[in-house]
Amino acid sequence: MPFGLFGIVENLTLLTDLYELTMLGGYFAQGKIEQKAVFDLFFRHPPFNSTFCLAAGLEQAVDYVLNIHFGKEEIDYLWNLHLFPDDFLDYLKGFRFTGDIYAVPEGRPVFPKTPMVVVKAPIAEAQFVETALLNFINFQTLIATKASRVYRAAEHGNVIEFGTRRAHGPDGAVSATRAAYIGGCSGTSNVLAGMKFGIPVKGTMAHSWVMSFQKEIDSFRKYAEIYPHACLLLVDTYNTLASGLPNAIIVGKELEQKNFKFLGIRLDSGDLAYLATEASIELDEAGLEDAKIIISNNLDEEVISQVHADIRSMARLKGIDGERIIRRLIYGVGTHLVTSRGWSALGGVYKMAAIGVDGRMEPKIKISDNPDKTTDPGYKKLYRFYENGDMQLDLLTLSDEEMRVDESRTAFHPQFPWKRMSLPAGSDFELMHETIIKDGELVYKLPNLVEIQQRMKQDLERMHITYKRMTNPHLYKVSLSAKLSNLKQRLLHEQRAEMNNFHDPAIHI
Amino acid sequence: MPFGLFGIVENLTLLTDLYELTMLGGYFAQGKIEQKAVFDLFFRHPPFNSTFCLAAGLEQAVDYVLNIHFGKEEIDYLWNLHLFPDDFLDYLKGFRFTGDIYAVPEGRPVFPKTPMVVVKAPIAEAQFVETALLNFINFQTLIATKASRVYRAAEHGNVIEFGTRRAHGPDGAVSATRAAYIGGCSGTSNVLAGMKFGIPVKGTMAHSWVMSFQKEIDSFRKYAEIYPHACLLLVDTYNTLASGLPNAIIVGKELEQKNFKFLGIRLDSGDLAYLATEASIELDEAGLEDAKIIISNNLDEEVISQVHADIRSMARLKGIDGERIIRRLIYGVGTHLVTSRGWSALGGVYKMAAIGVDGRMEPKIKISDNPDKTTDPGYKKLYRFYENGDMQLDLLTLSDEEMRVDESRTAFHPQFPWKRMSLPAGSDFELMHETIIKDGELVYKLPNLVEIQQRMKQDLERMHITYKRMTNPHLYKVSLSAKLSNLKQRLLHEQRAEMNNFHDPAIHI
Repeated sequence: MPFGLFGIVENLTLLTDLYELTMLGGYFAQGKIEQKAVFDLFFRHPPFNSTFCLAAGLEQAVDYVLNIHFGKEEIDYLWNLHLFPDDFLDYLKGFRFTGDIYAVPEGRPVFPKTPMVVVKAPIAEAQFVETALLNFINFQTLIATKASRVYRAAEHGNVIEFGTRRAHGPDGAVSATRAAYIGGCSGTSNVLAGMKFGIPVKGTMAHSWVMSFQKEIDSFRKYAEIYPHACLLLVDTYNTLASGLPNAIIVGKELEQKNFKFLGIRLDSGDLAYLATEASIELDEAGLEDAKIIISNNLDEEVISQVHADIRSMARLKGIDGERIIRRLIYGVGTHLVTSRGWSALGGVYKMAAIGVDGRMEPKIKISDNPDKTTDPGYKKLYRFYENGDMQLDLLTLSDEEMRVDESRTAFHPQFPWKRMSLPAGSDFELMHETIIKDGELVYKLPNLVEIQQRMKQDLERMHITYKRMTNPHLYKVSLSAKLSNLKQRLLHEQRAEMNNFHDPAIHI
Repeated sequence: MPFGLFGIVENLTLLTDLYELTMLGGYFAQGKIEQKAVFDLFFRHPPFNSTFCLAAGLEQAVDYVLNIHFGKEEIDYLWNLHLFPDDFLDYLKGFRFTGDIYAVPEGRPVFPKTPMVVVKAPIAEAQFVETALLNFINFQTLIATKASRVYRAAEHGNVIEFGTRRAHGPDGAVSATRAAYIGGCSGTSNVLAGMKFGIPVKGTMAHSWVMSFQKEIDSFRKYAEIYPHACLLLVDTYNTLASGLPNAIIVGKELEQKNFKFLGIRLDSGDLAYLATEASIELDEAGLEDAKIIISNNLDEEVISQVHADIRSMARLKGIDGERIIRRLIYGVGTHLVTSRGWSALGGVYKMAAIGVDGRMEPKIKISDNPDKTTDPGYKKLYRFYENGDMQLDLLTLSDEEMRVDESRTAFHPQFPWKRMSLPAGSDFELMHETIIKDGELVYKLPNLVEIQQRMKQDLERMHITYKRMTNPHLYKVSLSAKLSNLKQRLLHEQRAEMNNFHDPAIHI
């Protein structure tokens, strides 16, 4: 059995929590499987100090939904659990997703409590896809968002994803690489991700290459001889400034004398700001002005910002051009990027928004002791408004509201309806949800990764700098339409009235 | 193309950093591919405040190594990079792993800077497997170690892994579940992991089940009717003590009157210690003394310890038996377990320890400015010594040292050789490395997960409590044999002498 653990990939249908199946069995037993329901997938808090996330993972989620099928192995396994009746297992054999999925495309900024994905389907199907949708979208959205922070800290320089060896398993590496590209990375060391997604692959040598020679310079010369077009030398195996850098400069000059381009050096330890500054000066003095300096070693957005600040300070003291040093940097970012250090999971949730009752969709609200966790009810759409070309606010409406350009409207705070603002007629807005799957069929052309990254860059250009900063960013407004706000307040008061018979002294209900 | 992203799993060979391939190409170009080399895989720091890690991921790593092959798709992709010459790509078509792998079996405690895996192979092969070995072993070892902390905090109670929706992709969920079981979990919600690894699957209902009914009690009654043998009710959708718990008690008693066993309730929000205590009292008063209480909602080892402490305090004040409440708890642990919150990556590394020169193995040392990062040289073996049945210390020796029971020996501190201790003749010890792969063939019977978990439990029983505590655990000794210590000191001084011509004022070398 080759790749025992990856037998899983022939059929991912059972990538689900058991309770999705017990509930599905419950709906089946009641004859309720065809009852329509609407679920929203959203997150409550962006990771780190970000104002927004970058949507990612939709393509894999869609792949999953379109390919759900319970084969013999799955049915046999479930039968052996002695939990489900035979008629239900028979029903599963023909189970498919036949509903609709609306979603914000990958690479677009998304904000807390706005539905990134809306599933409208028979309740059995809509419920069943919960776990897998969350798995794909939580992870890739998290990593794309982390990558966006790193990319912004690198001042839109070249960030290469280097994290395969510390990622969460093989797919944790490959999918993280995909998401990192969406967030702004320009390449990866991961060859499998390169092959599967067309992401440019990068990399040269490890310390072990240098150590496999008696002398460091011999290891450099041999590498330059074999890869004259891709010669980038790791200079910190023994002593960066006393040995690695002078040896690299010798070999770099030899290479350029043979009319090849010397790509540069990599620093993987020590004080990166200090070493990069010194290396830049010495490379220039040797006439290797175009050589790049790759820095790596536990980089993340904070370390990169600090390296930039320190290079600028040191350059100022030396009276040289710090911007030039920074422009020649390339950032190899591994562990902290692909495992999202400091915020290892996005807490996306999947909540029922409406359910079909007697042929109409009845909006549902989940009230929590914590008002922050109370959901927005109903089958909804998400619009984004722009002011002078910049993103202004996101507006949630009920799906049957007409949105006419020539009408003004009022946007209501989602929790405090007395807080509101006017959106004049003629405002520029767009519907953020694309119809991805309709009646179980893919009706959307999934963009490739380059297109997704381009869209991300276009969107970030339309976002004011105050939303993009690393620390204490400005809060972006997400508002409700008048109709949705009224519905929410009505349901809150109705449910409050129902709860009057409850009497828990510890809790405001 | 079903499951586009999982096309990857047909052949994982390219799950590697590009530089492994450029180095492999470099060894090939020099005719050095057959030169023997030894690499050690180890970590420098255990995650969190732990003294040890639990080894995990070996089975998947072995699967990878045994199945390395460059098929047409891989070769075509590499050809299109325009980086590698044709003769090298031809060589890759027949590339296989032909060397030896020695490793500490899964589920065993391992300590910093001891080789969990030793690879002895032609340098091209030994180098090539670096990235994938680290990927599999870093991730699963991390999660097994986190799970061990949770399991110990739960005082060896039933911990169920619930994290699929927040894990790092599909395999990030399935492999995490496997590792969590190794660390002590007794079940999972992940059905795919259940099917693939035989792990018991658990789960009942979500809030959406309750919300799909007009009345909470109807949702409970229907569930009890459909799953009378597996009835566990989620009681916090509306109001736990005023609604959910009384309704669950009514349905639980109805069920027991029909001679079914009521399994219990789940608490997924609110103050878990307070609610569990109140619920336990009310379940008892209702005659449902055997009902379990599952607690979930962002649990980790700290939260569980706090819940236990608070239940004990509250029970003491009420004059009831807190231990009884704790014994009926089951712990649903999700996000923080499968994403290893607070320490999202294990920093395992793979370092050259020896290289074949003129037919003999020459030990190699990597000296770092940071003595903590200086490696232990040579082809080594790892032994574990016991004193009165308890683990005493781990001893690294050179592989050709004879270890006789009837000889005393001295164990040397790895950095400060004047610190040493005597191990008397007759000491109880064992070789920790099993021969897993010999000449490219699997020669080890891989244990199943139940066996691995049993071994983990046996090992932890032989570990003194001071090494197992959550905070400030005792440091476990890892020592070098006299021969290895002497070799290390000799190489350090030799390399120091070579560095005398270097002159970087900023660094002690």
